[in-house]
Amino acid sequence: MTDTVISSATKEVVIGFDRPFVTIGERINPTGRKLLAQEMKDGDFSRVEADAIAQVAAGAQMLDVNAGIPLADEPAMLAKAIRLVQSVTDVPLSIDSSIIEALEAGIAAYEGKPLINSVTGEDENLERVLPLVAKAGAAVVAISNDETGISEDPDVRFAVAKKIVERAADHGIPASDVVVDPLVMPIGAMGTAGQQVFALVRRLRDELHVNTTCGASNVSFGLPNRHAVTGTFLSMAIGAGMTSAIMNPMHTEVKTAVMAADVLAGHDPHCAAWITEFRDPTATGAGGARRGRSGRRRGASA
Amino acid sequence: MTDTVISSATKEVVIGFDRPFVTIGERINPTGRKLLAQEMKDGDFSRVEADAIAQVAAGAQMLDVNAGIPLADEPAMLAKAIRLVQSVTDVPLSIDSSIIEALEAGIAAYEGKPLINSVTGEDENLERVLPLVAKAGAAVVAISNDETGISEDPDVRFAVAKKIVERAADHGIPASDVVVDPLVMPIGAMGTAGQQVFALVRRLRDELHVNTTCGASNVSFGLPNRHAVTGTFLSMAIGAGMTSAIMNPMHTEVKTAVMAADVLAGHDPHCAAWITEFRDPTATGAGGARRGRSGRRRGASA
Repeated sequence: MTDTVISSATKEVVIGFDRPFVTIGERINPTGRKLLAQEMKDGDFSRVEADAIAQVAAGAQMLDVNAGIPLADEPAMLAKAIRLVQSVTDVPLSIDSSIIEALEAGIAAYEGKPLINSVTGEDENLERVLPLVAKAGAAVVAISNDETGISEDPDVRFAVAKKIVERAADHGIPASDVVVDPLVMPIGAMGTAGQQVFALVRRLRDELHVNTTCGASNVSFGLPNRHAVTGTFLSMAIGAGMTSAIMNPMHTEVKTAVMAADVLAGHDPHCAAWITEFRDPTATGAGGARRGRSGRRRGASA
Repeated sequence: MTDTVISSATKEVVIGFDRPFVTIGERINPTGRKLLAQEMKDGDFSRVEADAIAQVAAGAQMLDVNAGIPLADEPAMLAKAIRLVQSVTDVPLSIDSSIIEALEAGIAAYEGKPLINSVTGEDENLERVLPLVAKAGAAVVAISNDETGISEDPDVRFAVAKKIVERAADHGIPASDVVVDPLVMPIGAMGTAGQQVFALVRRLRDELHVNTTCGASNVSFGLPNRHAVTGTFLSMAIGAGMTSAIMNPMHTEVKTAVMAADVLAGHDPHCAAWITEFRDPTATGAGGARRGRSGRRRGASA
């Protein structure tokens, strides 16, 4: 049992073994979103606000906030985005930047205990990010690459994760506040990408006792019907023990797969969340009879 | 590596570790299908023929054939159904009955090496079914229940499977010809049903080195949006190492989940089957740009 507690001013989310999977909304990120990037640069954060509200409405328990725009003042932008998102939603946030000054500004603007996204296994990066995390009493996403890049060897990636967890401990950060990202490569480019992640997640859980996360949509890059691949990937990752992901909760297929995986992993007692989401007391078509029993009973009291 | 080879007169299917998942079509079964039961009883097997053709067209690599109709001559019906199905399709069959005489008649009518569905861990059943399997040089589905019923304890179910594999060996049937069904209970009735199967499948593979199958749709019985649950269950089972299932290939959501799981488990080299199924060279909508690269290239040569 490892629980990673993240909080806003008023709300706590726990990423943990044997708990419902935690969906971290990925949308507030100008990378690859030209319009959003331009708007943010022009000082128009209306889309950030709308994306925050929509993702929470779609079921995201946390939101990732990134303001990485070339030639922009990223620290100021990230702080502004975080303040704005915290003013319109109450979910805890992941503060996402590869720039130390932006992380600092984001942490200063944040109310609660954030998830810092991210630290890598590179020595220089470790020595710059971990003190920030320790000082803020935050949790941190640990990305399992180092100076040599992203290894295709799962043993190397495990060793990098282990190094980060140990180095975090040196800074007083417990393993329960390190959420490891095993790095998800596109399955279309690397056929072993899925197996690597599943094997790594199992080891990270069993041997390092850490929670895990990933940028899920990367797995289906370049493939047709990609949301089905992403959703299936996440359900298999949940089967292997993954406990959270940075993903798009607006994609119904992906969200449905995650909810079903929670049911099957035993993380949705009495299928309550599933039945609430999908019951249809008016259903009369194929499957309606079987579906009807719980649907009608709950429908009657609704 | 364990390969279970099943064949028709002209076609071989291999159920095996690190191979594409084998879909065994479940539709030719009058249990719960009143119209089909009545038609078969009246000697009208047109629906059997249509179901055989449709399931193979939908991607089933094998078909299960069951003729269990109350107060009917099951051995004669099963033999007739098998001859008919083999006359209209070339896929190998699973001969499905709980009645020894029906299995005998089915085996006599069958051309090739069938999968016999099934033997249980009950001593009397073992001593009646295994000699048939050995004599026919067939493979057999081993259901992990015994005289005491279906245990909720995965260790007991594993022990029953082990007993069947050992007893089969006494009859000269190799473990590679025993395909274990860990028994899938409805998740709505037993919240641990998924975890039990995933853990059992892993042990059956790692310790007994046997292939596995299951009646997949049972897992979602009684739930709304049940095909999504069944599909997600199968993808997680594939992640745990399950190598085949008796399922409905006509349910697109279920079939898509199985295909995506094959991609992610590394059983669909270069995502070839996935891309063939889902490529859409005319796609211009959201995601079209990323999707376009492989779509267009393949589209141009199509």
